[in-house]
Amino acid sequence: MAVYTHLGAEDLARLIGEYDVGSLVMAKGIAEGVSNSNWLVETTGRGASGSRFILTLYERRIDYADLPYFLGLLDHLAARGCPVPRTMHDRDGASWRMVEDPGSPSGASKAAALIEFLPGVSPTRPTPQQARAVGAVLANLHLAARDFPQTRANAMDFAASAAILDACAADALGGIDPALPAMLGHARAAAALDLAALPQSQTHTDLFPDNVLMLGDEVTGLIDFYFACTGPMLLDLAVTHAAWCFDGDNAYRADCGAALIRGYQDVRRLEEAERALFSDVAKGACLRFVASRAEDWLDTPDDALVTRKDPMQFARRWEFYHDHGAGLLAG
Amino acid sequence: MAVYTHLGAEDLARLIGEYDVGSLVMAKGIAEGVSNSNWLVETTGRGASGSRFILTLYERRIDYADLPYFLGLLDHLAARGCPVPRTMHDRDGASWRMVEDPGSPSGASKAAALIEFLPGVSPTRPTPQQARAVGAVLANLHLAARDFPQTRANAMDFAASAAILDACAADALGGIDPALPAMLGHARAAAALDLAALPQSQTHTDLFPDNVLMLGDEVTGLIDFYFACTGPMLLDLAVTHAAWCFDGDNAYRADCGAALIRGYQDVRRLEEAERALFSDVAKGACLRFVASRAEDWLDTPDDALVTRKDPMQFARRWEFYHDHGAGLLAG
Repeated sequence: MAVYTHLGAEDLARLIGEYDVGSLVMAKGIAEGVSNSNWLVETTGRGASGSRFILTLYERRIDYADLPYFLGLLDHLAARGCPVPRTMHDRDGASWRMVEDPGSPSGASKAAALIEFLPGVSPTRPTPQQARAVGAVLANLHLAARDFPQTRANAMDFAASAAILDACAADALGGIDPALPAMLGHARAAAALDLAALPQSQTHTDLFPDNVLMLGDEVTGLIDFYFACTGPMLLDLAVTHAAWCFDGDNAYRADCGAALIRGYQDVRRLEEAERALFSDVAKGACLRFVASRAEDWLDTPDDALVTRKDPMQFARRWEFYHDHGAGLLAG
Repeated sequence: MAVYTHLGAEDLARLIGEYDVGSLVMAKGIAEGVSNSNWLVETTGRGASGSRFILTLYERRIDYADLPYFLGLLDHLAARGCPVPRTMHDRDGASWRMVEDPGSPSGASKAAALIEFLPGVSPTRPTPQQARAVGAVLANLHLAARDFPQTRANAMDFAASAAILDACAADALGGIDPALPAMLGHARAAAALDLAALPQSQTHTDLFPDNVLMLGDEVTGLIDFYFACTGPMLLDLAVTHAAWCFDGDNAYRADCGAALIRGYQDVRRLEEAERALFSDVAKGACLRFVASRAEDWLDTPDDALVTRKDPMQFARRWEFYHDHGAGLLAG
């Protein structure tokens, strides 16, 4: 979590000048985002009151060819009333532009986007009321995204999870935890699931609490759409369920789980095929995070300053869905 | 540059609740400050419009016994119209309070302060107009601080610089740059200077451009007073001169240097004793940064992810003042 690229006040003012948003009043690099550099920016705006934005500089950890999908989806959803940030378009109408990295001797440039600032804070211990609100907003997003004209494949689908775990040697996985190597077999089983018949839309697929801004029980913003892709809506609900409904000791919070699903179904009732597959898809969702975290764990030296996320957290959640997933949609 | 302590939204909301500033609307960890964690915080405020603050959590790299000096000085200066942030006082009237670090198993607590947010951006390539404005604001600060009732010794005075360089082995200094060991002798000479007769006040002593917020040519904020101390005002001017008046290639910018001194003297005319010592004090100011950077350089592994600041940058500036310092106050 850091700002990876140094842009001075003059660089930032010049970049902001490419947009019709007034002149720069404030810019603070913010300690959010692991694949981008972000600044909270204030400008004089066009009216009496100032305007605030998030300026994101993409550090080449995402494929720039995906930017039209990510940013176009934000504009599409915002236009339909979903609480997602709009993108500002520059004077040429573009939602992103290339800017020179002044720290790069080769004059390399990086993509930048100016995105609407949304208020709110991310809950760390969500309440059932908050989970219900998030469920409803997620279902609204799925409905609103159905006519979005672009598509993007899920680079972290169940087959990718299995391939990642396969590439980690079994003894290396066992070195993290003796229970981890068995997850490869489960990931292969998930990869064999046929999800083609499930209803599809554009999906966030990474809706952890820190990607949701709230004021009290109201969702004020869904952010960080850089894993968004076209796929089964059920998978997005399952990811959100696995991300929101376990406490700090990794115990299932039945109140939040039920509230999240109730909130979702208040807006979009799950189909029979989705209900039948919920438990298997939730297990697959867990394995997606087991895989990426195991890979990160093995890639990160023991003494590195960054905090490694424990892949076993989601292996335990897999076990929960394996044992209890079938009953979760009974209510 | 990071947020070192994780405080969740609920922790932050509880902390903000100790102040009469409304309820939490937004909190973003900001990538500023090397010895503190900082959040840009917005609350509902007490009136119709929201209020913004910087929440600082002191990571025990400063002595908490100094907090009444640092924070009291801000309030003193703000009350006299200097562009420095006021501190918010909690419902008990305290300008700082201890908060539990939820990530600490021993329940250790850290000091926190809620400080007024000021707009503006820090120039990276200051103009002479900006240097002149900073000079005037610095002189105003010195005059306004003269009746501040507390004192704090300069922990980084010239004797401390010499001691730090002394503690770095000469061959280690030579390993950084062959010209560096000679700086120890110069630091000892600076430590022998008698500055007692120079007029004193409270001083910032670290007024680099990134500690100054500006909108155009107007100074909107002086920040980061955690090296502030009681001492000769001339030293503060010399630090600021050395910090502001060299370009990216370390070449002296005569236009900025002259403008800074003119701006300062527009408000407070230097005394004859100060003019006589300017060059020697500027050299001592450079050695203070040579010393701290050399120490950091030798303490930081070559392959560490943090950027080491080159101590030779200020060794070269020392040479500039040695060769040309006597003429700088001629105008």
